[in-house]
Amino acid sequence: MRTEIATLGEFGLIRHLTENIKLRNDSSRYGIGDDAAVLSYPSEKQILVTTDLLMEGVHFDLIYVPLKHLGYKSAIVNFSDIYAMNGTPKQITVSLGISKRFSVEDMEELYAGIRLACEDYNVDIIGGDTTSSLTGLTISVTCIGEADKDKIVYRNGAKETDLICVTGDLGAAYMGLQLLEREKAVLKGDKGIQPDFSGKEYLLERQLKPEARRDIIRKLAEAGIQPTSMMDISDGLSSELLHICTQSKTGCRVYEEHIPIDYQTAVMAEEFNMNLTTCALNGGEDYELLFTVPITDHDKISEMEGIKLIGHITKPELGYALITRDGQEFELKAQGWNPLKEEK
Amino acid sequence: MRTEIATLGEFGLIRHLTENIKLRNDSSRYGIGDDAAVLSYPSEKQILVTTDLLMEGVHFDLIYVPLKHLGYKSAIVNFSDIYAMNGTPKQITVSLGISKRFSVEDMEELYAGIRLACEDYNVDIIGGDTTSSLTGLTISVTCIGEADKDKIVYRNGAKETDLICVTGDLGAAYMGLQLLEREKAVLKGDKGIQPDFSGKEYLLERQLKPEARRDIIRKLAEAGIQPTSMMDISDGLSSELLHICTQSKTGCRVYEEHIPIDYQTAVMAEEFNMNLTTCALNGGEDYELLFTVPITDHDKISEMEGIKLIGHITKPELGYALITRDGQEFELKAQGWNPLKEEK
Repeated sequence: MRTEIATLGEFGLIRHLTENIKLRNDSSRYGIGDDAAVLSYPSEKQILVTTDLLMEGVHFDLIYVPLKHLGYKSAIVNFSDIYAMNGTPKQITVSLGISKRFSVEDMEELYAGIRLACEDYNVDIIGGDTTSSLTGLTISVTCIGEADKDKIVYRNGAKETDLICVTGDLGAAYMGLQLLEREKAVLKGDKGIQPDFSGKEYLLERQLKPEARRDIIRKLAEAGIQPTSMMDISDGLSSELLHICTQSKTGCRVYEEHIPIDYQTAVMAEEFNMNLTTCALNGGEDYELLFTVPITDHDKISEMEGIKLIGHITKPELGYALITRDGQEFELKAQGWNPLKEEK
Repeated sequence: MRTEIATLGEFGLIRHLTENIKLRNDSSRYGIGDDAAVLSYPSEKQILVTTDLLMEGVHFDLIYVPLKHLGYKSAIVNFSDIYAMNGTPKQITVSLGISKRFSVEDMEELYAGIRLACEDYNVDIIGGDTTSSLTGLTISVTCIGEADKDKIVYRNGAKETDLICVTGDLGAAYMGLQLLEREKAVLKGDKGIQPDFSGKEYLLERQLKPEARRDIIRKLAEAGIQPTSMMDISDGLSSELLHICTQSKTGCRVYEEHIPIDYQTAVMAEEFNMNLTTCALNGGEDYELLFTVPITDHDKISEMEGIKLIGHITKPELGYALITRDGQEFELKAQGWNPLKEEK
């Protein structure tokens, strides 16, 4: 079934997609339906704001990304930024630019994913804008969150001797993307073939349905650990670590053997004849957390599940060092995903 | 001179466009440069959030809209939504999707307009996202503002006998657009011709460089007038008035002869052989304020410059009535600009 969006119009579509949305958070006082949403935060909280713009053909390919997954991911990537400040996401606005190719049912799917993410993470959809687009789909999400004033963690607080920590494992989302791209190329040749992803489900899940590390933020708080710096890994570990070092005016020393990599990622890298460490260092979209803690937290942090120590912060003059398994030292370089940089 | 955006990359371009941005407002604690911006509002304030997505070819035509004006307008339309809640805009995030057609210099122009609007209205640019686009320019702005808890004005508070007020004049932005579209068509025929806009400057200004009615919000506060309902006129008076009536569960009675129209708008409508009242009722992008006040404020409001009383709120069963100059009664219908509705 296909209902043309034109039959509803802008206001009709917004009403249709957002009906029955209930506000869950105390801080959400008035949602969709006026010139602006109204929020109310207690004065002991600071407010966090982040935004992401996703463009079809640049950030996603609808040949293999289901719209519901895309909606889910559009919300999650913003939640991840709020957690990366040691905060809690509370509200989002969702703006959509929609070409004629899409039906009302398509937008229902997309919105179902966004709403699911919001339910899972207890976030309210409080507004947005919906309009037509001459080409493709545009998704712009802004997320608002809260944090205790003295608990916010910036990128610029890393200190010499701090331990560098990474959650989960890296490179899997990137390998998932490679896998989907390969199947897309294969399918172009023969439309009858069904791709075989068995044994690779984790990679696909990491690419198509990432989660934000709320669990880690809670665990750190429970353990009384306050990171000195933190950010989420969206463009690749190298790129993010250099952001932390540059903003903190430090160097770093990272050990290849400690970088967490899943078994499926390793198998897939071999299949693709790719360097595994390069995938883990520069593959984006993992949405894991990269953070530093004082060395005095060593015992506490090394006991925590889902967190790996990969190195430590150094004096700035020592640079950004990667120590390989065989003891060689290389300079870490940011080769993360950068959609505006010329490909070389 | 043309510098390719690829030479800077995403982070380079953001740094370049946002360098030297100083935060002006106390509530802006940390701006661009981390996973999220940090704001701090006192507990007696409520926070307003609004967002607009502007797509090339749908909302603007770069053949006749200078990029600096476009940047200015992108910010203003959001400020207008915050004023329409009886609030004050304080922060914006700016996300840009940029195709290869654009140079660094183009984005400098666009950003110069955004920064100018922010200076004029004392608003901080606190973040955003910059990425590539396969086609055209996409601008997504989210604006955050503040209002005293008991001063926020919604669309749903209009009461029977309330007076309906409109600021400034209507239809000029729409006539400006018609004028620009005509000149574009003329210029396609002969590239040597320079368009002659003399005597029509006001119409062009209304279309290309709209302002938000901060002055009216201040005047109303000074006069101790609290509107019962309010919104800004972006899609046309009819459409907006129906929003207020629907949400307030009322009817309305509006008098054609009282709808404020500028002389240049009238001249232009005649030149184009268009019905002037239709232009004023349904032409969008005026960014004037539509609001209602209790009838007890009649004397105060009718003395205020820049505000016209155009009718009053009625019982819902009386419907939405437009009384023409010759005393006939018609039903008001929303024919405002709606980019997702099929054209008939």
